[in-house]
Amino acid sequence: MSDTKFDALCIGNAICDVFAHVEEDFLVQESLVKGSMRLIDTDEALRLYDKMGQTVRISGGSAGNTAAGIASLGGKPAYFGKVAKDELGDAYAHDMTATGVHFATPPLVNDIPTARSMILITPDGERTMNTYLGACTKFGPTDVDPDVVAASAVTYMEGYLWDPEEAKKAFLAAAHIAHKNGRKVAITLSDSFCVDRYRSEFHDMIRNGTVDLVFANEHELKSLYETADIETAISAARESGALTALTLGSEGAMAITRDEQIKVKAEKVDNVVDLTGAGDLFAAGFLFGLARSYDHQAACELGCLCAANVISHVGARPEKRLSTIAEQAGFEV
Amino acid sequence: MSDTKFDALCIGNAICDVFAHVEEDFLVQESLVKGSMRLIDTDEALRLYDKMGQTVRISGGSAGNTAAGIASLGGKPAYFGKVAKDELGDAYAHDMTATGVHFATPPLVNDIPTARSMILITPDGERTMNTYLGACTKFGPTDVDPDVVAASAVTYMEGYLWDPEEAKKAFLAAAHIAHKNGRKVAITLSDSFCVDRYRSEFHDMIRNGTVDLVFANEHELKSLYETADIETAISAARESGALTALTLGSEGAMAITRDEQIKVKAEKVDNVVDLTGAGDLFAAGFLFGLARSYDHQAACELGCLCAANVISHVGARPEKRLSTIAEQAGFEV
Repeated sequence: MSDTKFDALCIGNAICDVFAHVEEDFLVQESLVKGSMRLIDTDEALRLYDKMGQTVRISGGSAGNTAAGIASLGGKPAYFGKVAKDELGDAYAHDMTATGVHFATPPLVNDIPTARSMILITPDGERTMNTYLGACTKFGPTDVDPDVVAASAVTYMEGYLWDPEEAKKAFLAAAHIAHKNGRKVAITLSDSFCVDRYRSEFHDMIRNGTVDLVFANEHELKSLYETADIETAISAARESGALTALTLGSEGAMAITRDEQIKVKAEKVDNVVDLTGAGDLFAAGFLFGLARSYDHQAACELGCLCAANVISHVGARPEKRLSTIAEQAGFEV
Repeated sequence: MSDTKFDALCIGNAICDVFAHVEEDFLVQESLVKGSMRLIDTDEALRLYDKMGQTVRISGGSAGNTAAGIASLGGKPAYFGKVAKDELGDAYAHDMTATGVHFATPPLVNDIPTARSMILITPDGERTMNTYLGACTKFGPTDVDPDVVAASAVTYMEGYLWDPEEAKKAFLAAAHIAHKNGRKVAITLSDSFCVDRYRSEFHDMIRNGTVDLVFANEHELKSLYETADIETAISAARESGALTALTLGSEGAMAITRDEQIKVKAEKVDNVVDLTGAGDLFAAGFLFGLARSYDHQAACELGCLCAANVISHVGARPEKRLSTIAEQAGFEV
């Protein structure tokens, strides 16, 4: 096994988030399910964009946010994801590199544009995502640099990678390389609709050991195990053989293995502005903790601290240095 | 005099704001004067961008922010400003149109890119701006649509328009058309460095009646009248013949004419996040108030309410509908 050069390699759909504040009415008029992510085509992307009012544009993508979070904690993350050679793509690469993420996936030239997700924020802070995948549909196995996978303590991937066909193959190729080099593989279930789309494949991967670590929120875990009861879902997770990191919103988070079930409380947040990125930043804290040999309890606590930070402003990436915030809270970073 | 179709026509440099949070140290290392706006060339723009970390991108430009604010109050604003036919420019036009601003300046094609201002936010909420003017340097008198000027109750322009040579000519042409049609002309002094650059020309315009209404903050008014004493500056403003709307930060604002001197208190803000746009949104409230025949006191109060709203989040444009906020505060909008 070679030396660990990266604390985590994050692989995901490289997406620019386009935020707008809307009233509850807007979701009703557009027949959108609050809190969901849906995939849209070019026509729908243009139509919705025209209707959504003043926007704010921030680099996003679930695993990209996690990589930025790990960098902000002072860790060493790498990222694979496909942008186009356009302004949004250039900004995406800038934001990655400028925050200290190793990002070397070559951009797509003269083809479809960089992906964007139109995120509608309602007054309760919930976000409803409308994603045009663009260049992400061209991410495939050839974008998986085996040296980076081999040099990363864990390879962390989005369930959303199941949406573009070639990205799914890249996911499996990366998992194979990681295990061949004695590394761990993690998946985040992304959202409950994503779980609906790929439930049996996610099950298979957990059962056959393709993934060692599963990140999920309550809705996703219940969807995965097809139950309305969270305790039943937790029992199933315990029996699955994987380590499950479960986020519970304002209730905190849990780490679940066959032998252990740990629960930590959420950090108090006075002013929840935008829930975007809560799960992504929890994963950043948890993965950073594991890379620093924290026990599961401390890793959960750091995850909750990072999640609390990101929901107190618009956007899914840290605004302040998380290493400072973690140090002030008593973590060794 | 034809009917008033627009409450205000705002003319300014159409700029995309690129925000990043930095520590105080960063300004010291870069020898930047906190709170200032400096103009930079392409090389410096690229160099600084590489160093500034994770960014957030929002359409900005002082007069553009004011136009968006008037629209958010339920008013009818128009805007003139030059973007390029590129992604930033398209986003700029979208944000204007989507918020209800009449924006019909043709974009620049196959030339220099849309302007951007790299805004460094320090932990105290102050912002230091580094502006690459790009397409704004191509805004000129031919972009001034006389029908729109004639149909606007007031034409409001940035002092910053003095920076690109052709824009200055456009400013004077617009002022001439406005007065010929019995309309008012307003200027914002933009920043104290801008006043330093063009003091005598600004003086001349106020003295000879090219402008009827002057927006300034404390630093700008002191710079205009070359005094360190605000009372001396206020006396000079009183004698100038123009209506001066003076913002005083946490102290509130004043309306000053030869016959009248009114002071209103600032709205209390619990959590100042980013001072960008405070002056622009004060102007939005004040201009909207004048268009609705408010007296100077009420116009100042609405200006302060709008300013308080914009400094409680990142970015210089309203996130929530200002008409709702103004109504809740008892204004008739």
